[in-house]
Amino acid sequence: MPTLVLIRHGQSAWNLENRFTGWWDVDLTDKGVEEARAAGRLMAEKGLDFDLCFTSLQTRAIKTLNLALEEMRRLWLPVEKDWRLNERHYGGLTGLDKAETAAKHGAEQVHIWRRSFDIPPPPLEAGSEYDLSLDRRYAGIDIPATESLKDTIARVLPYWEGRIAPALRDGQRVVISAHGNSLRALVKHLSGIPDDEITTLEIPTGQPIVYELDDSLAATDRYYLSER
Amino acid sequence: MPTLVLIRHGQSAWNLENRFTGWWDVDLTDKGVEEARAAGRLMAEKGLDFDLCFTSLQTRAIKTLNLALEEMRRLWLPVEKDWRLNERHYGGLTGLDKAETAAKHGAEQVHIWRRSFDIPPPPLEAGSEYDLSLDRRYAGIDIPATESLKDTIARVLPYWEGRIAPALRDGQRVVISAHGNSLRALVKHLSGIPDDEITTLEIPTGQPIVYELDDSLAATDRYYLSER
Repeated sequence: MPTLVLIRHGQSAWNLENRFTGWWDVDLTDKGVEEARAAGRLMAEKGLDFDLCFTSLQTRAIKTLNLALEEMRRLWLPVEKDWRLNERHYGGLTGLDKAETAAKHGAEQVHIWRRSFDIPPPPLEAGSEYDLSLDRRYAGIDIPATESLKDTIARVLPYWEGRIAPALRDGQRVVISAHGNSLRALVKHLSGIPDDEITTLEIPTGQPIVYELDDSLAATDRYYLSER
Repeated sequence: MPTLVLIRHGQSAWNLENRFTGWWDVDLTDKGVEEARAAGRLMAEKGLDFDLCFTSLQTRAIKTLNLALEEMRRLWLPVEKDWRLNERHYGGLTGLDKAETAAKHGAEQVHIWRRSFDIPPPPLEAGSEYDLSLDRRYAGIDIPATESLKDTIARVLPYWEGRIAPALRDGQRVVISAHGNSLRALVKHLSGIPDDEITTLEIPTGQPIVYELDDSLAATDRYYLSER
């Protein structure tokens, strides 16, 4: 039976400050580091093990994976990093405080940007301090100016189909360390969650989510490892 | 001009205890962690940057790489891990205190095992607590029972030729985090050091060694980054 575990990165500095983060490369807090280590210890205690790891190009997800693998004594596992597992790009909201943004644009508008399925926030302005077009980690990639959850799904799923699903079908046990919205994309796909429900599904930081899959990769169960 | 940097892992617990380590998976000490971070800070300060990273399957080398990359804000770089960059396998000496071993076998014999080019130590005995045959990281690999430096070179160089040299020829900037003897293998090859000299060439922990190479990958200079 294929094994798949999803982990959202531990608390980041901007999770703590309640700022829109998206593709900006914010580090883990000390609490986030400890969440990542605890996730690794929990997976080891529960007897989970892996053959292949996937993560984004963002430090907070990579560090979460590395810290968890270190606790599992599995730092030697192969790790594939890809931008398609990055967080949803928050466009012009990047870096803004969520409460201030609500005060400025109205709570209803911010709710639409955060929770609608297919309405993206305004694009990141050219010359913004959060512009990543000169960051060479994204060289050759058509960096989005903003994304709806639908847009995020549209780049996560081809990566799932192209790289992750084949590894699972090949019998490899897989862990994915990623972000709230790139994981929503996967959970929506695997658990068949409707468009209007997936936007409010909360994925807590540092909590391993176990998928039990059949051989065709249809989900037969999904649970938080901490609850078993 | 191709860029190549070699780093021997930071101090490990058994470096500190003066025990033969080889393939046994010993972690870094706090000092080793700090050496790795300092190496990363130094590389960033000196303007070094990379496109591709190589390391062994051993925790001390992988952690050294991860810590250095974190300081360089380059955790997102691709990393290839391979057993052929592992430390020389010390056979039956694995785990032994170097001074005790000298007292038991004689200083001259230990000097031969440590410093001869082609005489391996006695093989690791079956049933030894340091037997790695059930460690699945080495599944499918013909784990040596012991190695001379010559044996180590014989598995490092095909990996160099097969994976690392092509990346350098392709214009990628490469960092290799590895071990005293797997790095001796590379230094011997790149700098043309004779058999009887390479065995006494000391490679300090956590000190980035920069190779300047011409387009045919012949070394035009080799220096410690800390000295420039």
